[in-house]
Amino acid sequence: MNAVIQKYDNRAEQLNTLLCVGLDADPLRIPARFASEQHPQFAFNRWVIDQTAAYAAAFKPNIAFYEGRGTDGLHELKMTVEYLREHHPDVMTICDAKRADISTTNDGYVRAIFDLLGFDAVTLNPYLGGEALRPFLDRQDKVSILLCRTSNPGSGEIQSLTVEGKPVWKIIAERVRDRWNTHGNCMLVMGATYPDELREVRSVVGDMTLLVPGIGTQGGSVEQTVQLGRNRAGRGLIINASRGIIFADDPAEAARQLRDAINACR
Amino acid sequence: MNAVIQKYDNRAEQLNTLLCVGLDADPLRIPARFASEQHPQFAFNRWVIDQTAAYAAAFKPNIAFYEGRGTDGLHELKMTVEYLREHHPDVMTICDAKRADISTTNDGYVRAIFDLLGFDAVTLNPYLGGEALRPFLDRQDKVSILLCRTSNPGSGEIQSLTVEGKPVWKIIAERVRDRWNTHGNCMLVMGATYPDELREVRSVVGDMTLLVPGIGTQGGSVEQTVQLGRNRAGRGLIINASRGIIFADDPAEAARQLRDAINACR
Repeated sequence: MNAVIQKYDNRAEQLNTLLCVGLDADPLRIPARFASEQHPQFAFNRWVIDQTAAYAAAFKPNIAFYEGRGTDGLHELKMTVEYLREHHPDVMTICDAKRADISTTNDGYVRAIFDLLGFDAVTLNPYLGGEALRPFLDRQDKVSILLCRTSNPGSGEIQSLTVEGKPVWKIIAERVRDRWNTHGNCMLVMGATYPDELREVRSVVGDMTLLVPGIGTQGGSVEQTVQLGRNRAGRGLIINASRGIIFADDPAEAARQLRDAINACR
Repeated sequence: MNAVIQKYDNRAEQLNTLLCVGLDADPLRIPARFASEQHPQFAFNRWVIDQTAAYAAAFKPNIAFYEGRGTDGLHELKMTVEYLREHHPDVMTICDAKRADISTTNDGYVRAIFDLLGFDAVTLNPYLGGEALRPFLDRQDKVSILLCRTSNPGSGEIQSLTVEGKPVWKIIAERVRDRWNTHGNCMLVMGATYPDELREVRSVVGDMTLLVPGIGTQGGSVEQTVQLGRNRAGRGLIINASRGIIFADDPAEAARQLRDAINACR
């Protein structure tokens, strides 16, 4: 089995949690006591990590929040991943970057995200096809997480177009299952805001792990996510929450409550 | 008219060129005399720009080649855009980043690419729908270039899926025309490697400008690109060449020849 998937499953079991904390350290929302530090996004993340790691099987920074601060932000993203590797080597790290380019051009992103930043996994956009994504997919030591049905309100505009009776997102799921996942290192992004699709995709991809954003602020239901999305082992879910945890007055308590709410439905 | 599109059209007319030089400064391919400089990618780009600007209406770095060097690469990308703005303010600058995230998360990319790096335009992936892309589309001072039919060999896997008799790429073109281009600041990416689709998309989007990669190394035909892709004004094309120009022994001569080959078909 892929080492990253094994790592996630082990921690999920040991800590009894399916929670992923989204380190979306929006510079405009970081509390003032961090904003004045030399490395505000890193200082904030370190505090959030220390507060929430006991309840988290994965951490997922969205790189857009760091790129928006230029090279300073990217440096602090790197500091964040290094902090996680040093203090929590058993936690899965996901770079939410939604990347995709034509084949060899992806080499730059592969190097940036897997090697320089050191993430375990990356989110990818399927629009250019599996051939283009090979530089990611061929990294057998890492995990490629393909956007399938995203959590945003307008995601159906393209993803739900119907091809011979099937929505595009379902065809993506089938392609990943049949062609792209040759190294057993793929996962899918399925928004919690679309529970019917979450149930349906589970029947397409068997026990494959799903990264599920959209809980909390975006309106997705914990109960539906767990009951419709879990696999035969009662796991197979990486349930992400970002703003609802990291900007809570007490992130530890917010993470613990969400972990418990998830577990109450398993 | 959008100021960036006006800028491109003006320069295309004044210099009599539809050529875009792709500044894909692959660190592994930069000539040795630049590789030893303090800022190798910038030093290489500056030389390429000085050699080719007389023949170019646009420059298009692909950001993956810079991210692959970490913050050093991104700093040199910024130096490159600043050099272009200072020495060639009339040339259009395109960041080939193929970005897309859910709505407000895109704010980070908007800030990074349009404001911090200072590009005139960005390439975007349509898979999340127009609602998600609004932070880009609503920048009326900039240009959003949507991936439609990409130049890679496997692009048809998803882009040519048929929805009610139409390929997905054509539906993207229609959505951009009818819904996403509300500010008149959109363009499409159409690979030169798919000439039939290039002809067909022209009939869908009227005189909209198309960014066409895939000439040269990738095998696209200059003649077909110009004859099938031009708009009623005989323009409406940004024809990109990267490796074939920047890694030529004489980039100026390679750019001049390609400009002339393009013009011979107009």
